[in-house]
Amino acid sequence: MTLESAIRNLVIANRILAHEGVVDAYGHVSIRHPDNPQHYLLSRSRSPELVEAGDIMEFTFDGAAVGGDKRQPYLERFIHGSIYASRPEVTAVVHSHADDVLPFSVSLTTRLRPVVHTAGCMGNHIPLWDIRNKFGDTNMLVTNVEQGRDLATTLERNNVVLMCGHGFAAAGRSLAEAVRIAVYLPKNARVYMEALRLGEVRVLSPGEVEQKMVKNPNAPEIVRAWEYWAKRAGCGHLLDGAV
Amino acid sequence: MTLESAIRNLVIANRILAHEGVVDAYGHVSIRHPDNPQHYLLSRSRSPELVEAGDIMEFTFDGAAVGGDKRQPYLERFIHGSIYASRPEVTAVVHSHADDVLPFSVSLTTRLRPVVHTAGCMGNHIPLWDIRNKFGDTNMLVTNVEQGRDLATTLERNNVVLMCGHGFAAAGRSLAEAVRIAVYLPKNARVYMEALRLGEVRVLSPGEVEQKMVKNPNAPEIVRAWEYWAKRAGCGHLLDGAV
Amino acid sequence: MTLESAIRNLVIANRILAHEGVVDAYGHVSIRHPDNPQHYLLSRSRSPELVEAGDIMEFTFDGAAVGGDKRQPYLERFIHGSIYASRPEVTAVVHSHADDVLPFSVSLTTRLRPVVHTAGCMGNHIPLWDIRNKFGDTNMLVTNVEQGRDLATTLERNNVVLMCGHGFAAAGRSLAEAVRIAVYLPKNARVYMEALRLGEVRVLSPGEVEQKMVKNPNAPEIVRAWEYWAKRAGCGHLLDGAV
Amino acid sequence: MTLESAIRNLVIANRILAHEGVVDAYGHVSIRHPDNPQHYLLSRSRSPELVEAGDIMEFTFDGAAVGGDKRQPYLERFIHGSIYASRPEVTAVVHSHADDVLPFSVSLTTRLRPVVHTAGCMGNHIPLWDIRNKFGDTNMLVTNVEQGRDLATTLERNNVVLMCGHGFAAAGRSLAEAVRIAVYLPKNARVYMEALRLGEVRVLSPGEVEQKMVKNPNAPEIVRAWEYWAKRAGCGHLLDGAV
Repeated sequence: MTLESAIRNLVIANRILAHEGVVDAYGHVSIRHPDNPQHYLLSRSRSPELVEAGDIMEFTFDGAAVGGDKRQPYLERFIHGSIYASRPEVTAVVHSHADDVLPFSVSLTTRLRPVVHTAGCMGNHIPLWDIRNKFGDTNMLVTNVEQGRDLATTLERNNVVLMCGHGFAAAGRSLAEAVRIAVYLPKNARVYMEALRLGEVRVLSPGEVEQKMVKNPNAPEIVRAWEYWAKRAGCGHLLDGAV
Repeated sequence: MTLESAIRNLVIANRILAHEGVVDAYGHVSIRHPDNPQHYLLSRSRSPELVEAGDIMEFTFDGAAVGGDKRQPYLERFIHGSIYASRPEVTAVVHSHADDVLPFSVSLTTRLRPVVHTAGCMGNHIPLWDIRNKFGDTNMLVTNVEQGRDLATTLERNNVVLMCGHGFAAAGRSLAEAVRIAVYLPKNARVYMEALRLGEVRVLSPGEVEQKMVKNPNAPEIVRAWEYWAKRAGCGHLLDGAV
Repeated sequence: MTLESAIRNLVIANRILAHEGVVDAYGHVSIRHPDNPQHYLLSRSRSPELVEAGDIMEFTFDGAAVGGDKRQPYLERFIHGSIYASRPEVTAVVHSHADDVLPFSVSLTTRLRPVVHTAGCMGNHIPLWDIRNKFGDTNMLVTNVEQGRDLATTLERNNVVLMCGHGFAAAGRSLAEAVRIAVYLPKNARVYMEALRLGEVRVLSPGEVEQKMVKNPNAPEIVRAWEYWAKRAGCGHLLDGAV
Repeated sequence: MTLESAIRNLVIANRILAHEGVVDAYGHVSIRHPDNPQHYLLSRSRSPELVEAGDIMEFTFDGAAVGGDKRQPYLERFIHGSIYASRPEVTAVVHSHADDVLPFSVSLTTRLRPVVHTAGCMGNHIPLWDIRNKFGDTNMLVTNVEQGRDLATTLERNNVVLMCGHGFAAAGRSLAEAVRIAVYLPKNARVYMEALRLGEVRVLSPGEVEQKMVKNPNAPEIVRAWEYWAKRAGCGHLLDGAV
């Protein structure tokens, strides 16, 4: 994929996440640089709904802006770099505060589980990371490399890590997968929350989860959602084929 | 009804279901072919909000496209064909993942019941189908005739079948009835969920349910909703009389 | 108030109730005829969002259309006539299926109570009417005078009556009061539902409820809401002073 | 800051609170007068969504309009004056009835706590004020100086006070902080409500809360939200730098 196409898709992803209510003023999405796997692309400090191609910056895994770019970056860019550094197969990362996921991020007793098939790509195990455990009282943001690495360590080989009182980070082997996880994770959380109220719940089996991973981001059923979300978010004109 | 009118109504139904939040990127609605009861009409693989008349394809009950149509069909079209094959009186089918219904699709303890009069047409008994029972670990989609037939067997003579961790299929003796069930089923689920929290609940009696079936899809109170939903969905201009 | 102004306000009320989510395809609002207290004004069978001045019909308390008007009326107009007949001080009636109120209409154990000050005008006691008690298995609609009178008998001197598995009817001494009750009743129901989950709840005292009744529909704080709702509903241009 | 800029920001704040669903027909936001700390600025009696620069009035702490301004003020302006009088460091006040906060305002058993990091600026302790305790049966509104002072006494040195069956008042050291608290307080309430259902909950520590206070309203992460909310509310064109 050309850099230009990659950036265009990243802008679409920003708008989709905003329009689907996954991010608000905060939250962000990045992709690994298509030509340099040691770098990643992420907007300057702007709310995702407002992000345009010109806002995209290039970073090293340590969060340093490339090419003398002096614009204000996101404080929490270390989430992204740390995950790219520890997970070579990951090519896209979403960080979000979606309300429906947050109850599971502060519950000391109940863990989030996959129950809805569209959210199967969230994976079987969703680890929970509390910044307080290692760093004590902070502003709860991931603002340096050390915190980012600690988060990535908890994420391990999973697709999603919940961040206590804060939100989640999702790692995808494609941008389509990362966005898909981020859109369906809150729906899954809401459904699971309601179902728990009714009694015992059927969760996805490991075998079902395995089959729900996004193996081909250009499969018709994956592209169908991407196209739909992009049009709803008002950027259908940016669509240009491969995701 | 002419084929042209039937297709126009099917497009309206797609848009209504999208606008009322019953379907999102996924979910679909079909009708039995007005001139050939062994065939049915269903969009190519597109999100319902985007469906236009030109997207409608014709299928046999086994899910084969008629007339050499090579466009990408929905993976789950077997839901539709199997229900038409086993239920001669059914003329429209909706498949949806509506969030508010999903908790009842994964609860191992509590069954969905009709409590709201507008949802009475959902029927008295709502069977629950778990693809895992017969097919083991799958991607949880109904992707072949055998799975479709198993679903239709569980549906039996009822109007709605819940699909575990997935959604529901609704069968109507008219398009108006199928759409009506699909719109009010999630509302009924939400109300029942909340009411259960308060204690013992009054459910509709079999006699009440019987009287809420849509006997005449052109009755003023049925047309009133169809017209309202179509206008809200931005396709009032497609309305042309009989549903 | 002139008949023309009364009708204009009734149209605004229809649009407000639709826009605020109190009514959908169904539900209706009426006013007592300003010049003939034995008649009332109500739209023909249309969804409230679509109602225009030309849709307003005039009815006797028995539900007969006045002046040879042959248009299709609402099946449930008997709700309105029966309340006007039994409650001379009532000048406006709303009937709604608002989702958030419905759980309390089917709970056999928990009664709705006023907990939010803006909903104080709902009154202290909210009776519950089950059509099944007197009429057995029906389509659950109020479709004749006898059913309407039975409902009005249960309403008694209160402002709101819940209808089992169906919705509610609200009676106001002004249109502004009836609409206000209808808008805030669902909010109150939602808040009460959530608060019950937390434990014991503070409800409004009879003295507080008394002070929240809408004594003057043209008081600034009442007009402020009416003006706001009308503008949001896209009919600010219809506003012309007194409500 | 010039008076003109201050008023422009106050208009933006009104629109933001309306658009984010924090206020509806009711609720209001004020700022301390930039040139006269003994006065404050607040709209005339209008719904916040409709407020324009010309609607802003100037008041003394006792709620008297300055300069012979005869327009109808909000009945509850005493909330604002009383807080400014008792808290010299406060420069902005929001009063809201946001639905999601109300359950905690009527619960006699469960207190609202900060659990979401974005809402950390709500503070560690959220006192609860019941007008009934001192004033008996009222219309539940803060309509005079004595009631306002009693509310301010309960608020003490905290950032938020809940008002029983009514809503909340939030005090900020900047307009950005007051608006931020008002936007995230309902989200925090919803998340806490849901999390309580799951079992024991992780709340923010006093040290974490301290670090979430808005020390610099012009920090990039604070301005990012302000800009985002303003644009969403349709008044991006009013933005002019410092908040």
